[in-house]
Amino acid sequence: MNKEDYFIKQFSKNKIIGDDGAVIGKYVYSQDAFFENVHFKKEWMSLKQIAYKSMIVNISDAIVMNAIPKYALLSVAIPKTYSNEDLKELAKGFKKAAMQFDIEIIGGDTISNEKLDISITIVSKTNKPVYRNGIKKNDLVCFTGTLGESKRDLNRLFNNEKVSNKSKFIKPKLKQDFFYEIAPLINAAMDISDGLFFDLEKLSQQSKVGFEFFYEIDEFRGTSGEEYEILFAFDEKNKNKIEEIAKKHKVKLNIFAKAKKGKYETKAKKHHF
Amino acid sequence: MNKEDYFIKQFSKNKIIGDDGAVIGKYVYSQDAFFENVHFKKEWMSLKQIAYKSMIVNISDAIVMNAIPKYALLSVAIPKTYSNEDLKELAKGFKKAAMQFDIEIIGGDTISNEKLDISITIVSKTNKPVYRNGIKKNDLVCFTGTLGESKRDLNRLFNNEKVSNKSKFIKPKLKQDFFYEIAPLINAAMDISDGLFFDLEKLSQQSKVGFEFFYEIDEFRGTSGEEYEILFAFDEKNKNKIEEIAKKHKVKLNIFAKAKKGKYETKAKKHHF
Repeated sequence: MNKEDYFIKQFSKNKIIGDDGAVIGKYVYSQDAFFENVHFKKEWMSLKQIAYKSMIVNISDAIVMNAIPKYALLSVAIPKTYSNEDLKELAKGFKKAAMQFDIEIIGGDTISNEKLDISITIVSKTNKPVYRNGIKKNDLVCFTGTLGESKRDLNRLFNNEKVSNKSKFIKPKLKQDFFYEIAPLINAAMDISDGLFFDLEKLSQQSKVGFEFFYEIDEFRGTSGEEYEILFAFDEKNKNKIEEIAKKHKVKLNIFAKAKKGKYETKAKKHHF
Repeated sequence: MNKEDYFIKQFSKNKIIGDDGAVIGKYVYSQDAFFENVHFKKEWMSLKQIAYKSMIVNISDAIVMNAIPKYALLSVAIPKTYSNEDLKELAKGFKKAAMQFDIEIIGGDTISNEKLDISITIVSKTNKPVYRNGIKKNDLVCFTGTLGESKRDLNRLFNNEKVSNKSKFIKPKLKQDFFYEIAPLINAAMDISDGLFFDLEKLSQQSKVGFEFFYEIDEFRGTSGEEYEILFAFDEKNKNKIEEIAKKHKVKLNIFAKAKKGKYETKAKKHHF
């Protein structure tokens, strides 16, 4: 068990922990850290891109729970060396994401630190949350879009190569309109942040099911993290409706597995930098 | 203007920012960072004490807005060198504070980092929030307890001297029962975290008043941060009632100033470490 999981286990009597967000009444709370040298290196992205991505990865958690993000709290640790121009760029990135998703930045904390470390809390509203634990036996399991781009671009960045500003690794693209429309038709969902195989393991643990793959997914794609594609499961009877909604929103669907009795564990090694 | 203030100014169209917490309907959201080498050095306190204090300083923000803390989200960046025993100690500190204030830890994020950096969001409920901006001309201004202990003990720690486990710097003591009882009788409040003089400056900005001191407060006490005493203002007609409540809860009151037209600015230098 890695240290993060061991630490979380200390609180595990609490059933709310373990999903993308915590549901309390009609509100969903999600909090994620976005730290320099843990989630990004400053050479890789502009400050505006960093701030924007830090918001988007948090907003993604809200969306896949079928919640509408409403408010954000930003805790930003800022290096002493940053100029006012740098701070403006950072603020622009936060505000760009806030505007795009109609989120109000309501507070937080700003401190002076050695590196740029961001923690964001998103408060969202939902009428019917979608959890990770709702998969039923024989449900079809699907992910959106394509996988592998983020891992490819992360590798390039590690090799000091350039990547496109449009790369999903730099600028994740969320599929909120598609997701909100399929939400009533699905049984479980999460975003692909650690990589498909690792995220499937979490779904397996939460829903207490295994998965029978329809085709092989290679390790490169299966371990590409920070894709922010959506991984979800649904009853076969809703397949046509979901495919229609996907077509309308131009979202590619990959129905790659079926839920079955048992459990799913991957042997792939988690990428840590 | 320091960098933190400059950064916050980028969001300043938002009126909610600038208080201890952000009020949305009946909920108050407060988020504060508690970072190694910014707020503490690891030699100064046990991991349990660090985790406990990181919760308490956040809970303090909720209390001074007259809100009952209900839920906490913890974002914890953990050094790779920490043992499982260390993680258990950390968790114990968080859980101790949560139990003391009947708070449910509902989620958050755990990452691997160079140092121990904690960001906490507290979700609280209030029927009648107390803000920083409610002071009226001629209001009496008061702080609880005594000031100076935290600065004295912080200086000792910087000199590698020992301080008591009971020091307010190690273990802040909140006065929630007293505060909730006086809340209907006061016009504004905040906790003393930066030091009385700096916090008075914030009250002055928010309430657009100045202060006439009844007696001199020396610079050592006036600049002692992290006291977590309560600074509040009230109409003179409520003085007797407030004094009775203070007596009942054995809280020392220091009515040291009166609000007047104008503004208050301190020349004292902020302590940064």
